[in-house]
Amino acid sequence: MTAPIFDQIAVIGIGLIGSSIALAARESGAARKVSLFDRDADVRKRAKKLRLGEVCDTAEAACDGADCVILCVPVGAIGETTKQLAPALKAGAILTDVGSVKESVLGEMQAHCPDKVFLIPGHPIAGTEKSGPEAGFPSLFREAWHILTPLPQREEDYNSAVDRLAGFWEMLGAKVEIMDAGRHDRVLAITSHLPHLIAFNIVSTAYDMESVGEGEVVKYSAGGFRDFTRIAASDPTMWRDVFLNNRAAVLETLGRFTEDLAALQRAIRWGDGDMLMKEFERARGIRKAILDAGQDTSETNFGRNTKDKN
Amino acid sequence: MTAPIFDQIAVIGIGLIGSSIALAARESGAARKVSLFDRDADVRKRAKKLRLGEVCDTAEAACDGADCVILCVPVGAIGETTKQLAPALKAGAILTDVGSVKESVLGEMQAHCPDKVFLIPGHPIAGTEKSGPEAGFPSLFREAWHILTPLPQREEDYNSAVDRLAGFWEMLGAKVEIMDAGRHDRVLAITSHLPHLIAFNIVSTAYDMESVGEGEVVKYSAGGFRDFTRIAASDPTMWRDVFLNNRAAVLETLGRFTEDLAALQRAIRWGDGDMLMKEFERARGIRKAILDAGQDTSETNFGRNTKDKN
Repeated sequence: MTAPIFDQIAVIGIGLIGSSIALAARESGAARKVSLFDRDADVRKRAKKLRLGEVCDTAEAACDGADCVILCVPVGAIGETTKQLAPALKAGAILTDVGSVKESVLGEMQAHCPDKVFLIPGHPIAGTEKSGPEAGFPSLFREAWHILTPLPQREEDYNSAVDRLAGFWEMLGAKVEIMDAGRHDRVLAITSHLPHLIAFNIVSTAYDMESVGEGEVVKYSAGGFRDFTRIAASDPTMWRDVFLNNRAAVLETLGRFTEDLAALQRAIRWGDGDMLMKEFERARGIRKAILDAGQDTSETNFGRNTKDKN
Repeated sequence: MTAPIFDQIAVIGIGLIGSSIALAARESGAARKVSLFDRDADVRKRAKKLRLGEVCDTAEAACDGADCVILCVPVGAIGETTKQLAPALKAGAILTDVGSVKESVLGEMQAHCPDKVFLIPGHPIAGTEKSGPEAGFPSLFREAWHILTPLPQREEDYNSAVDRLAGFWEMLGAKVEIMDAGRHDRVLAITSHLPHLIAFNIVSTAYDMESVGEGEVVKYSAGGFRDFTRIAASDPTMWRDVFLNNRAAVLETLGRFTEDLAALQRAIRWGDGDMLMKEFERARGIRKAILDAGQDTSETNFGRNTKDKN
């Protein structure tokens, strides 16, 4: 058995990600002890029942003695939570998070994080559309990327803290990547934030069609729509905070998307089949690159339920 | 063993759908004999190797003696193919298709279909992102909806032909639904055509981002983008024809989508979190309706490859 990376970690916020970290840290042996806190008393009660670790009644109690504190709260709550926890953090501890936006939150975290604590923001590219402590499972991070966006300082003890945190995520099965916060936000705007916004939007549009009933949309959703509803089932609070905090990159990406869509719309209106062919063939090329890179082995099968595949 | 519905079917166009019909018809015993034709000599050669049935060198030869001729060509080729085949169709035979658009094609089909032949357009809500004869598999239609859009005539022999064709698809495992052609096109515009257009478009937008490399898009595609690339890998010719032939319904649906997206964009720009929350919660509701209706048992798992799930 490999030695634990941390003697104790504290998980603040017990949703899908927080509960998965707790389960994965214990299953992998990456942490000897896991303490947890959620501001929702009912969630704390459920987390106790699920035996996710030592569920504490205050965030401060959960952080007491922790070598690594992981904020698993929505992006919009990270600054405030850092402020609240600061006095409870142990000297030499690591403070990290799992937020989907990094740059806008960094200032607030830095402002409140004590000097003696190593602030190393992070983001696991992993998830499902489910929410809450019951949604967690220990293999969630396996083979997934985990992006760390360390501060641009390079003291040796800080670097060694980054190595320790990277080692922790690797024990959970993740592949760790170091990236600048601003770059992270631009990459995620196109690979994650815009796709989610589009999915939320198309589901809303379908909802409002007077000419097609909701029942029909549901019944024939297998023609492509269903994949979007799955993405659009993700946690609303989390995504609201993502869009409000990665505003610039999302608006820039969205502007390009809308421009490109207008060009397709015009081609449809004027019957420009060559333009449509050219664009659709290009899109196919990117899919091939993803398959070649081994980034996806799953398949679309839009007639039936995926579980019935064979 | 149930008796075959048709003594002989002819499959014209040997792609994903055509080859799946050939395999399913033989496996289920819904047709005693399957003859096939594709205008591409290489595809015919591959179809022979795959033993999909009696692969003929002309479309006329494939239709010779067939009780049911199924056009599995792109929507834009259905009219021309009907015209070409008309003299070869047997009296009392059924002529059907699998096109994703029904109304605009109907006129052309009717103009060329001989009086003695029962014209019954159809559309299976089934598929994968793969193309070509090798992509077919016999269970593709199992539990999938198959929509028939019969002509608004009600002679008894026509109705009995509709029953026979419905029975054929049911033997292939499909659930058959009768629908008006115009309604079909409006329902599919929102449940299938718009989702595909959006998917093609977002993949193009990602391709053109100078600030984010294609490699990074591929690497971090698990954050949501990957699901779109899968949909966008579908056959370009097929989809070009869909958009050109369902122009009015697609443009109407797309107009609403763009309007709704502009409202979300504005909410992001002005920091209107309440509006975003309201929309995202609504989207979640539709997902729940789909799950309640048993229309999807699959899950998003965007960190990893779906096949590694457990």
